[in-house]
Amino acid sequence: MKTVISRKSIRKFAERPVDSTLLNTLLDASARTQTMGNLQLYSVVITQDEKNKQKLSPLHFNQPMVVQAPVLLTVCADFNRTVKWAEYRKAHPGYDNFLSFMNAVSDALLYTQTFCNLAEAEGLGICYLGTTLYSSSQIIEILKLPRLVFPIATLAVGWPAENPNQTDRLPLSAIIHNEVYHDYTESTIDDLYNYKENLPENKRFIEINNKETLAQIFTDIRYSKNDNEMISGTLIEALKQQGFL
Amino acid sequence: MKTVISRKSIRKFAERPVDSTLLNTLLDASARTQTMGNLQLYSVVITQDEKNKQKLSPLHFNQPMVVQAPVLLTVCADFNRTVKWAEYRKAHPGYDNFLSFMNAVSDALLYTQTFCNLAEAEGLGICYLGTTLYSSSQIIEILKLPRLVFPIATLAVGWPAENPNQTDRLPLSAIIHNEVYHDYTESTIDDLYNYKENLPENKRFIEINNKETLAQIFTDIRYSKNDNEMISGTLIEALKQQGFL
Repeated sequence: MKTVISRKSIRKFAERPVDSTLLNTLLDASARTQTMGNLQLYSVVITQDEKNKQKLSPLHFNQPMVVQAPVLLTVCADFNRTVKWAEYRKAHPGYDNFLSFMNAVSDALLYTQTFCNLAEAEGLGICYLGTTLYSSSQIIEILKLPRLVFPIATLAVGWPAENPNQTDRLPLSAIIHNEVYHDYTESTIDDLYNYKENLPENKRFIEINNKETLAQIFTDIRYSKNDNEMISGTLIEALKQQGFL
Repeated sequence: MKTVISRKSIRKFAERPVDSTLLNTLLDASARTQTMGNLQLYSVVITQDEKNKQKLSPLHFNQPMVVQAPVLLTVCADFNRTVKWAEYRKAHPGYDNFLSFMNAVSDALLYTQTFCNLAEAEGLGICYLGTTLYSSSQIIEILKLPRLVFPIATLAVGWPAENPNQTDRLPLSAIIHNEVYHDYTESTIDDLYNYKENLPENKRFIEINNKETLAQIFTDIRYSKNDNEMISGTLIEALKQQGFL
């Protein structure tokens, strides 16, 4: 629990490589995570080659850690392996549908997070790249992902070369609901977001961006309606292309 | 790492309750998990009331641990709280789309898995119920989930009253790919699935079910094409109903 409580995302990595025995131990141990019907509906593409990191970099919006991290892991929802197995065993798979996609996404993300917890407990630093879903069709092409394989999460992994401050979190009462969901009133929202909105770095952020409120930074700049709708379209197209829709 | 390597899903729980301080400590610590833009796009509905467990039980196919576990957690992808915040702060959110759903799903599942890892490290037993996506619209109704909130994962949590054998996993080489995805040939599949297919319990399982191969148990009985397609339809309907499509 100590590692989790003190954890932070790491975006600057030392030149020190990640030993392949350690990496494989972590990847293997993470597979103890629960998985649907014990099918392990995921695969991990490991990128260590400089040229391949350079190819992936623009798809992750040229965030510098993509090239700088010694290891990139692209965790994929994978029904291809299970389907191949079934086809070689006189079985008739029916996993080219949305439920199966979501089941494989679940398996992939649960696996991803156990890997993060274990790697951080070993002192490694992780940055989870939220850009994977934004550029899915190009990532599919570069990593040569076949039908029924879909990139879900990318992790930059290495030894930390920075020690950033921990970011804030909402109070527990913001995320838990007893027995049924209790919707948020204006005054609850005020209470829950008060601390976050009054952090000096957030106030400065509002000023620099010439906005009135912190929420506008998210809705107008970081995750805008236009971008979300455009990317939703390309994401759905990529799902069709990979046979899940 | 020790807890993860030796972990198993638990389906029988002692009568001993889960102390609320411990539960809250785990739920709070799990929130240190990385989250998109630090928005924490998830909520957790905690079910401890007997009557509510009884209501949820059929939606989880009457698996006995739903009623027997002292605590059920339904982890939801949640953009409602963020949207409410934005609306009270003169911001114009655009999160009623598929990308936003997937981003909230990612946040919810990463949070879920850190909770599992922390809870198991404390000696608690967990069973992850894969049935949540199957019955989403009824769960939405019972837990009173508003628009832009969607149930993703359910955990039965309690003190173990059984010590089952660990289940097998595929060898690491089945799930990792160096630099690009290397598709599986028939002989690779033979190698990777040989151990699993020759386990006495799996051989017995094939016999009892009057099937030729283990894969047929999955394709014909556990996760059939018909069921998957039917549930994909209801899942997509539920996503529309909750405003994500």
